[in-house]
Amino acid sequence: MSQSIKVFAPATVANVTCGFDILGFAVHQPGDELLLEIRDQPGLEIKDIQGDQGLLPRDPQKNTVSVAIAHLLDHLKLDCGFNLYLQKKMPLGSGLGSSAASAVAGVFGANLLLGKPLETLELLPFAMQGEALACGSAHADNVAPALLGGFVLIRSYQPLDVVKIPSPSELYAAVLHPQIDIATKDARSILKKQVPMKSAIQQWGNVAGLVTGLITENYPLIGRSMEDVVVEPVRSMLIPGFQEVKRAALDAGALGCGISGSGPSMFALSVGQEVAQSVGEAMTSALQKVDIGSDLFVSAVNQNGPLILSQDAAP
Amino acid sequence: MSQSIKVFAPATVANVTCGFDILGFAVHQPGDELLLEIRDQPGLEIKDIQGDQGLLPRDPQKNTVSVAIAHLLDHLKLDCGFNLYLQKKMPLGSGLGSSAASAVAGVFGANLLLGKPLETLELLPFAMQGEALACGSAHADNVAPALLGGFVLIRSYQPLDVVKIPSPSELYAAVLHPQIDIATKDARSILKKQVPMKSAIQQWGNVAGLVTGLITENYPLIGRSMEDVVVEPVRSMLIPGFQEVKRAALDAGALGCGISGSGPSMFALSVGQEVAQSVGEAMTSALQKVDIGSDLFVSAVNQNGPLILSQDAAP
Repeated sequence: MSQSIKVFAPATVANVTCGFDILGFAVHQPGDELLLEIRDQPGLEIKDIQGDQGLLPRDPQKNTVSVAIAHLLDHLKLDCGFNLYLQKKMPLGSGLGSSAASAVAGVFGANLLLGKPLETLELLPFAMQGEALACGSAHADNVAPALLGGFVLIRSYQPLDVVKIPSPSELYAAVLHPQIDIATKDARSILKKQVPMKSAIQQWGNVAGLVTGLITENYPLIGRSMEDVVVEPVRSMLIPGFQEVKRAALDAGALGCGISGSGPSMFALSVGQEVAQSVGEAMTSALQKVDIGSDLFVSAVNQNGPLILSQDAAP
Repeated sequence: MSQSIKVFAPATVANVTCGFDILGFAVHQPGDELLLEIRDQPGLEIKDIQGDQGLLPRDPQKNTVSVAIAHLLDHLKLDCGFNLYLQKKMPLGSGLGSSAASAVAGVFGANLLLGKPLETLELLPFAMQGEALACGSAHADNVAPALLGGFVLIRSYQPLDVVKIPSPSELYAAVLHPQIDIATKDARSILKKQVPMKSAIQQWGNVAGLVTGLITENYPLIGRSMEDVVVEPVRSMLIPGFQEVKRAALDAGALGCGISGSGPSMFALSVGQEVAQSVGEAMTSALQKVDIGSDLFVSAVNQNGPLILSQDAAP
């Protein structure tokens, strides 16, 4: 059995326009890197965190990674211990599933170091418990795609029912992270508690269209379905330049564009890497025009989820 | 060119639990039969209607079939005339898309008699106009599956965007028509104008699950997704014995069970004809226990839509 493992867990785009709280997909970058080593005595120790500007808790009872691992160890009734070295290679609080990536890296890496007692899908509840710490409630629309890869539907929370949705290989995402802060809790609190029936019907028509387009590789249908009449009209007001960025993405040939998770990051889907790259650059320029800097990530949909970067490497 | 044609258009199950106003599918029976003959002078004449207990208007300006055909002729700028002989082989006001079947039979038959100037999908707006006469508004969730066959998604009404959803060949429907009356307009007026966000999210999770299950032939997922938390809790109160019928269907092995359209008909989906038949019989018995008679129709999902029964036959 290995004594240490280094893993990567990807950023994720939740909601995907019309799929509020039920849909997400993984990208190849950005993401988190986590080195785990088995230690002699029980307990989890966070040895180092880089790339978080000192913002994440070092107390293992308060950190997403260690809390997720602790829930896994509890379930397995194991009393072993790990040292954790986390490298955040993605922005925090950005709407890209930063805490989900950390939680998934934790349970994915720990499960492998323990000799894979659980299947990947079985790790989901423990990653969700890690994320609940960061977000206040146990959502799965970032954690599930980060863990399983690809597009993932959370059909139901009670009971938890998670379904991987096939998607076309030429589907690429441009993800734009504006260098501004909004808190997930604010983004959630401004949502109305009631939806007009007419909007709800539009939304579930679009969700059905999006899923159908993904599975049947119907790109125009994916594009027509990427319309959010419930959440985007409210949340986009928190994101300076949103309308300009969206217009620029569509004009540059994107199938559709929307808010990533609760924002402020935005994403666009396109056919092929070349178009996605142009779309991303157009989005970047549009945001520059309103004097906001940004980071751009262009990648295919990540069908794998987390990766092993190295095994048995010395820290 | 033929001088006359006899066509069949099928009954349809709209809504399909979680897909309120956006989803429907066609069955093989019941349905409408329509004989159309070209006449010498312009104008539409309803020569005979059978099976409607005298309830349908004989005035061609007020009848669904003739109004649908009139809109088609208007569009084609044709001034020809038809005699119409309609045989209703299905109950009216039953939640099985009776007026949609009539409208589809009309435009499908007329288009063929005219030498097929339009493709089948292009007939949809004219059939919708026929149905609008009966229902007060132009819905497509019965008309589209009656015309195109199979499962059909109405992704959007403005603009109209209709998508055929592949479904597994072993999927069978049991459709139960209780011998009681409820008016579609009542069934619509009792619906709330606002949906709690939480319920809306559950509903679009289920819609996405149902469509995914249909396309990927995942029967258990179809079953788990056939849950309507928005409309069924309200409308089922108008249907005596609904809960008993649903319980009986699920106990007999149905994947799921719900209200057909705005009711009072109910439907269940099952894997294979044999199970569907047992399910239908269990539903019938459950309704008998509350002293309501019913008609049962069991068939595979009808992938074809309307059919030509005969051509050039004398009336």
